[in-house]
Amino acid sequence: TRKIDLDKNLDRFEYENVAVEAPIKVFLNGKHLATVMASPQNLAEMAFGLLIDEGVVPQPGDVVNVSIDKNEVWVESRRINLDRFKSISAGVIVTSCSSRTDFHRVIEELKMSPLPLEQRVEASDILDMAAELVKRSVTFRSTGGVHSAALFIDGAMEGFAEDVGRHNAVDKAIDSCLMKDVPLQRAVLVTSGRQPADIVLKAARCRIPISVSLRAPLSSGVYAADLTGVTLICFARGRRMNVYSHPERINPLRTI
Amino acid sequence: TRKIDLDKNLDRFEYENVAVEAPIKVFLNGKHLATVMASPQNLAEMAFGLLIDEGVVPQPGDVVNVSIDKNEVWVESRRINLDRFKSISAGVIVTSCSSRTDFHRVIEELKMSPLPLEQRVEASDILDMAAELVKRSVTFRSTGGVHSAALFIDGAMEGFAEDVGRHNAVDKAIDSCLMKDVPLQRAVLVTSGRQPADIVLKAARCRIPISVSLRAPLSSGVYAADLTGVTLICFARGRRMNVYSHPERINPLRTI
Repeated sequence: TRKIDLDKNLDRFEYENVAVEAPIKVFLNGKHLATVMASPQNLAEMAFGLLIDEGVVPQPGDVVNVSIDKNEVWVESRRINLDRFKSISAGVIVTSCSSRTDFHRVIEELKMSPLPLEQRVEASDILDMAAELVKRSVTFRSTGGVHSAALFIDGAMEGFAEDVGRHNAVDKAIDSCLMKDVPLQRAVLVTSGRQPADIVLKAARCRIPISVSLRAPLSSGVYAADLTGVTLICFARGRRMNVYSHPERINPLRTI
Repeated sequence: TRKIDLDKNLDRFEYENVAVEAPIKVFLNGKHLATVMASPQNLAEMAFGLLIDEGVVPQPGDVVNVSIDKNEVWVESRRINLDRFKSISAGVIVTSCSSRTDFHRVIEELKMSPLPLEQRVEASDILDMAAELVKRSVTFRSTGGVHSAALFIDGAMEGFAEDVGRHNAVDKAIDSCLMKDVPLQRAVLVTSGRQPADIVLKAARCRIPISVSLRAPLSSGVYAADLTGVTLICFARGRRMNVYSHPERINPLRTI
């Protein structure tokens, strides 16, 4: 890499880290479900997370075997939701750096019972979790080219992942918790990427009530959070944040 | 939106702008090519750019009609590259906030003759273009949720677009130039998003020799730029930048 810095009058070749992405093929019961551009680490977690978060496999316990062969992940499951398999493998949406799906799924999601509202969190705790995500994101600091995601239960980080794709990072982070059987209904998902509908729906489908991002919301994300009962928090940086839906879960500050 | 700021002891409801995204359906000669999540503006430019940049329609002059019906764009073209139509509508890649395609296309692209190297640009001119992109990105300043892209010819901005998807922003920006018949072989593409292979290949396919990003490269982007002859510049911010491929096009600084 040639580095140029006008202020330092610097123009020289130096080694630079670059975020690696590779096409990862996911097979379910021998059939090709999807090819995903992803960081080629934690592929079992990615595939497993994708299958559960996208509703293709109903329950984590349905998976009987996961094997990895280079950039291919082969998953065997006792049960498959065939409609979801078809809609993902049909790939209706050729995406735009964002959604794997379209708004119709938001409506489909409404069949789900809304998330209960009893969980209450302090704003300062949310900001502490966001700060911890930043601290853990070592690949981002080294390459600038990846997203990160983490799951917190009662303030403790239970799952963490980095990936070139913000969707994959969420799949990988959620999966490391699914494997441990942690109580997702008390979890907070914290991510570095924008929040379109399908990231919010990954949380909703796993009964995660609070989804926090360091970055911006998208209109589809706010809509999906509204309908499914997810508390959507964005721009959680430093000492401030915006709550776009179901703000009841965040305890009020005692303002002057 | 509920805004919370611990430093200011602020906790109140205020109106906030959110980046809008909507599923846009693109039809070519009556057949469904793709549904893309995009900002619902400049849809003709998006569809037109997508068709040309992705090689589905060989030449801008082949398009005989574009009509828009709400979130649907209907394009009529004299010629279609059927292989490209099939590979996009098959949607092999369910994307991860990034690529519409996989590495195999990089290899396919190699059939293209490499871009000529004669164009020479000053590093300071590249950084001026990056600064101008930031200045023009008003939707980003208002929502934090969109990407921007611009095309410059001889230092003058000839095309500009913002979109929730970094791919769409590039399609829209390139298209406004295709319509004007500007000399793309002298153009510089400047974008706010990361650079995976398929963004670099959009430039290569349109014979744009220099692709600049404010953000990070991805390994697939560096690989694609190397092979197609595109000069890939990333982290172009303030007074510094990194050149990841074909650095000959950037004039040397007179370093001490």
